[in-house]
Amino acid sequence: MRYTLAEIAARIDGEVVGDDNLVVTGINSLEAATPDELSFAEEKFLGKAVSSKAGALLVPRKTDNLTQSLIICEQPFRAAGQIMMEIDKAAQIVDHRIDSAATIGDNVSLGNNLHIGPGAVICDNAVIGDNSRIYANTYIGKGVLVGSDCRLYPGVVIRENCSLGNRVIIHPNSVIGSDGFGFLQVGGCNVKIPQIGSVVIEDDVEIGALCTINRAALDKTIIGRGTKLDDHVHLGHGVKVGDEVIMCAQVGISGSVRIGNQVMLGPRAGTVNHITIGDRARLMAGTSAAKDLAGNQDYGGIPAVPAKQALRQIMAATHLPKDRGRLATLEKRVQDLEKMLHLAKK
Amino acid sequence: MRYTLAEIAARIDGEVVGDDNLVVTGINSLEAATPDELSFAEEKFLGKAVSSKAGALLVPRKTDNLTQSLIICEQPFRAAGQIMMEIDKAAQIVDHRIDSAATIGDNVSLGNNLHIGPGAVICDNAVIGDNSRIYANTYIGKGVLVGSDCRLYPGVVIRENCSLGNRVIIHPNSVIGSDGFGFLQVGGCNVKIPQIGSVVIEDDVEIGALCTINRAALDKTIIGRGTKLDDHVHLGHGVKVGDEVIMCAQVGISGSVRIGNQVMLGPRAGTVNHITIGDRARLMAGTSAAKDLAGNQDYGGIPAVPAKQALRQIMAATHLPKDRGRLATLEKRVQDLEKMLHLAKK
Amino acid sequence: MRYTLAEIAARIDGEVVGDDNLVVTGINSLEAATPDELSFAEEKFLGKAVSSKAGALLVPRKTDNLTQSLIICEQPFRAAGQIMMEIDKAAQIVDHRIDSAATIGDNVSLGNNLHIGPGAVICDNAVIGDNSRIYANTYIGKGVLVGSDCRLYPGVVIRENCSLGNRVIIHPNSVIGSDGFGFLQVGGCNVKIPQIGSVVIEDDVEIGALCTINRAALDKTIIGRGTKLDDHVHLGHGVKVGDEVIMCAQVGISGSVRIGNQVMLGPRAGTVNHITIGDRARLMAGTSAAKDLAGNQDYGGIPAVPAKQALRQIMAATHLPKDRGRLATLEKRVQDLEKMLHLAKK
Repeated sequence: MRYTLAEIAARIDGEVVGDDNLVVTGINSLEAATPDELSFAEEKFLGKAVSSKAGALLVPRKTDNLTQSLIICEQPFRAAGQIMMEIDKAAQIVDHRIDSAATIGDNVSLGNNLHIGPGAVICDNAVIGDNSRIYANTYIGKGVLVGSDCRLYPGVVIRENCSLGNRVIIHPNSVIGSDGFGFLQVGGCNVKIPQIGSVVIEDDVEIGALCTINRAALDKTIIGRGTKLDDHVHLGHGVKVGDEVIMCAQVGISGSVRIGNQVMLGPRAGTVNHITIGDRARLMAGTSAAKDLAGNQDYGGIPAVPAKQALRQIMAATHLPKDRGRLATLEKRVQDLEKMLHLAKK
Repeated sequence: MRYTLAEIAARIDGEVVGDDNLVVTGINSLEAATPDELSFAEEKFLGKAVSSKAGALLVPRKTDNLTQSLIICEQPFRAAGQIMMEIDKAAQIVDHRIDSAATIGDNVSLGNNLHIGPGAVICDNAVIGDNSRIYANTYIGKGVLVGSDCRLYPGVVIRENCSLGNRVIIHPNSVIGSDGFGFLQVGGCNVKIPQIGSVVIEDDVEIGALCTINRAALDKTIIGRGTKLDDHVHLGHGVKVGDEVIMCAQVGISGSVRIGNQVMLGPRAGTVNHITIGDRARLMAGTSAAKDLAGNQDYGGIPAVPAKQALRQIMAATHLPKDRGRLATLEKRVQDLEKMLHLAKK
Repeated sequence: MRYTLAEIAARIDGEVVGDDNLVVTGINSLEAATPDELSFAEEKFLGKAVSSKAGALLVPRKTDNLTQSLIICEQPFRAAGQIMMEIDKAAQIVDHRIDSAATIGDNVSLGNNLHIGPGAVICDNAVIGDNSRIYANTYIGKGVLVGSDCRLYPGVVIRENCSLGNRVIIHPNSVIGSDGFGFLQVGGCNVKIPQIGSVVIEDDVEIGALCTINRAALDKTIIGRGTKLDDHVHLGHGVKVGDEVIMCAQVGISGSVRIGNQVMLGPRAGTVNHITIGDRARLMAGTSAAKDLAGNQDYGGIPAVPAKQALRQIMAATHLPKDRGRLATLEKRVQDLEKMLHLAKK
C-alpha cells in the first residue's frame, strides 16, 4: 500500500487537516504504528492518540494536542476497516490455477477462475463454483457442493454430500460433515448408529480454524446465512443455527439444538442436547444452557439463568464464607435469647 | 435405497399395516421425511407422527389417527438403526486401491483389500491390516500398527510406534501419539521431558474429529475396547481408559488419570491429573473432577460432587441473593430482641 | 538403547550399588518396567519401588528392602529425564532430505540439513533455517520465516507472513496465523474486518497439537521465549504472551489479552478479552478471568478470585442446602421469640 492522505480522504469521505501529500504505507494500531503508517482513534481514544508515533490519524474531530496529520471522518473505526479491506484485497490476489499436485475425481464440475492448491483432493461428483479457492491439502468428499467465491483454507475436510453456499470461508483444519455421536446400547456394548444425513452451510457463513460441524443422523445440520463461528467450535448432529449468529471460540453445541437468529454465544458457552435458544439471546462467556432459553435476553452461569440473576448469584457467592459465620453467630445469639426468655418466663 | 414395505418388514421382523407394495427410497426424521421416505416413532412420539409427511412409519402399534402406511415392530428406533446401517453399507462401498499420490515407506506391510487415498503418507515399518481404509492426507508414522477393518479419515495423524486394534474408526484431523506435556523447571526455564512412550488403542474404539491422544512419557496411554470419543476430546500422557467408555465433545482428561469401564463423561467434563474414576461413574456436562471418584454413581459440579448434591447446591445458589437479605433482616430482628431483653432484664 | 549400569552412572554422575555390568535396554515406569529395563523413584516412591520388576533403579539412597541393582543419584527424576533425552535423540535421527512429493514455491530460501516431508507445501518467499524438520502435509504460507532447529509436525498450517524463532516445536494439525474473529455490525449483518497483522513466535516455544494462534487485526500476536502450550489451546488476535509461560490443555485466551512472564494457566482456564494477567500469576484448572489479575498470586473460580477465596467459596457452597435449612429454622425461632416478647411486654 502506498497512498497520500488526500487519496485516503477521498476514499472514505474524510477531510485532511495537515499534509495532503503525506504518503502512508500501511495502517496499524496506535501503539505499533510508525511515522510512515496511518492509525485511527475513536473519540474515547483521542487522549491515547497524542503519544502515537503514527504519521497520520483517522479521528472524529481535531483536537489541539494532536500533532500528527489528521483525516477527520465520522466513524474512524469503520473507515480504518475500509482501508484494511483494500489492503487485504491486494494481498489476496491469488493464482487462478489448478495445481498439478491436486487430485480431481471423476465427473467433478469446476467453475471458472479457481485456485486449487497442491495436495487438495476433490472427490467424484463434487461441484465447485466460480472464483472459489481450495487451498493446499484440503479434502472435498464425494458429491459435495461448494458455491462461488468460497475460501477453504489448508487442511479443511468436507465429507460426502455436504453443501456450502456462496462466499463461505472455512479456516484451516476444520471438519465439516464428520459423523455425529450416536450409539445404541446393546447388551453393554455401544453399537454405532450410522450417520446418513448431511450438513448445509448457507451463504456468507465464516467458520474458524479447527471447528467440527457434524452431519445429522438423518436429515441435515444447518448453519444459517451470515453466521460466524470462531475457532474450536463444535456443533453436534442435527443442530440448526439461524442467521447472523455469533459463536465465540470453544463453544460446544450438543445434538439437535435449535439456535435462533442473531444469537450471541460468548467463549466456552455450551448447551445440553435437544434445547432451543431464542432469537437474539446472548450467552456470556462460559455459560452452560441446560434447558430452553427465551430470546431477546442475556444469560450467564452454569446452568444458565438471566444475566442479572447470574451476576447477583456470583456477587452473593463471594460473601458466602463470611455469611456462614454470620449465620453461626446468629444461631448462638438466638439460643442465648431463648435461654434467657425461658428464665424470664419462669 | 429402493425397498417395498414388505421387504423392509421382512428384514426387521415387523408387520405391514397398509400398502405392502409401497416403495420407499430413504429414511428420515418425522419432520423432514417426504412421501417417498420412511420415518419412525417410538410410543411417546406417536402424537407427533400424525402430521409427518412420511409415506410410511415404523411404529410400536397401530393408532386410529395415523393415516400413513405402517410397519409395526417392537423397537422402532432400533429397526430404523438397522435400516440406516444397510443404507450406510451401500454408501460405504469404496475403491480398494492404493492411490498413486500416496507415499509408502520402506518395509511397510500392507494387508489385502486396502483403500489408501491420495496424499496419505505411510512411514517405514508400518503395518496395515486387511480391509482398512486410510483416507487422503493421513499420516501413519514409523512402526505404527493398524489392525484390520479400520477407517482413518482424512488428515488423521498417528505418530511413530502407536498401535490400533481392529475396527478402529478415527475421524478427520485427529492426532494420536503426539508428545505429552511434560517439563522440568531448570533455573526458571522449562526443559522438555522427551515423551518416549506410546499409545495403544484397542478393538472397536471410535475417536471423533479433532481429538488429541497424547503418547505416554514412558509406558503407554491406553484406550480400552469399545470406547467411543466424540469430537475435540483430549487425553493427556499416560491416561488409561477402560472398555465401553463414552466421552462427549470437548472432554479433557489430564495426565496419568485412570478411567474405569463403562464410565460416561458428559460434554466439557474434565479432570485434574493422577486421579481415578471408578467403573460406571457418570459425569454430567461441565463436571470437573478434582479427586478420585467412586464408581456406580453420578456426579456434577466444579469440583465434582455427587449429582444429587450438585443439583441441591445449584438450586440453593439461585436463592442466595434473597437469602442474604433474609440473613440481614434476621440480624436486625435479633438485635432488636436483644435490646428489648436488655431492657426487660433491668 | 543398550547400556551397562556403569555407563549410565558415569553419564548422570551416580554410583552403582549392585551389578556394574548389568545391561538395560530401556527406561520405564515402576509399574511397567521389565527386568531388562531401568526405572526410577524419588524418596517418596521408595516404598512403591520394592515391588517393581525393573532390573535396576535410579534412587536417592540405598534402602534395605530394595533388591534390584541401584544407581544412587541426587535427583532420580532429572537423571531419568537425561536418559530419556538420549533415547529420544537416537529415535529422532531423521532423513535430511527434501521429499520429491513436497511443493516448494518461488524464491524460497532453504537452509542446510533440512527434512521436508511428502505433501509439505512451502509457498513463495518463505525462509526455512538450518536443521529444521517440516514433516509431511504441513503448509508454510507466503513470506513465512521459520528459524533453525524447528520441528513442524504433520498437518501444521502456518499462514502468510508469520515468523518463528529457533528451536520452535509445533505439534500436528495446529494452525498459526489464521484470521482473528472481528466483525463490524452493519445494519444487522456482520461484516468481516480483514485481519492484516501477523504472528510472532519467539525462540524455544512449544505449541501442542490442534492449537489456534490467530493473527492480529493490525500489529502482531506474540508468544514469548520459552513459552509452552499444551493441546487445543486458543489465542485470539493480538494476544501478547510473555516468556516461559505454561498453558495447559484447552485454555482459551480472548483477543488483545496481555499475559506476563512465567504465568501458569491450568487446564480449561480462560479469559475475556482486553485484560492483563500479571507475571507469575497462576490460574487453577477451569478458572475464568473476567478482569485484570495481579501477578505473583494464585487464582481460581468463575469468575477468577484469589485461590484461597475460591476454595473457601467452594467449601461454603457445599454447605448451602443445609445452611438454607438453618436459616429457615432460625427465622421460625426468632418469630417465636418475637411473639413471646410481645406477650411479655404486654
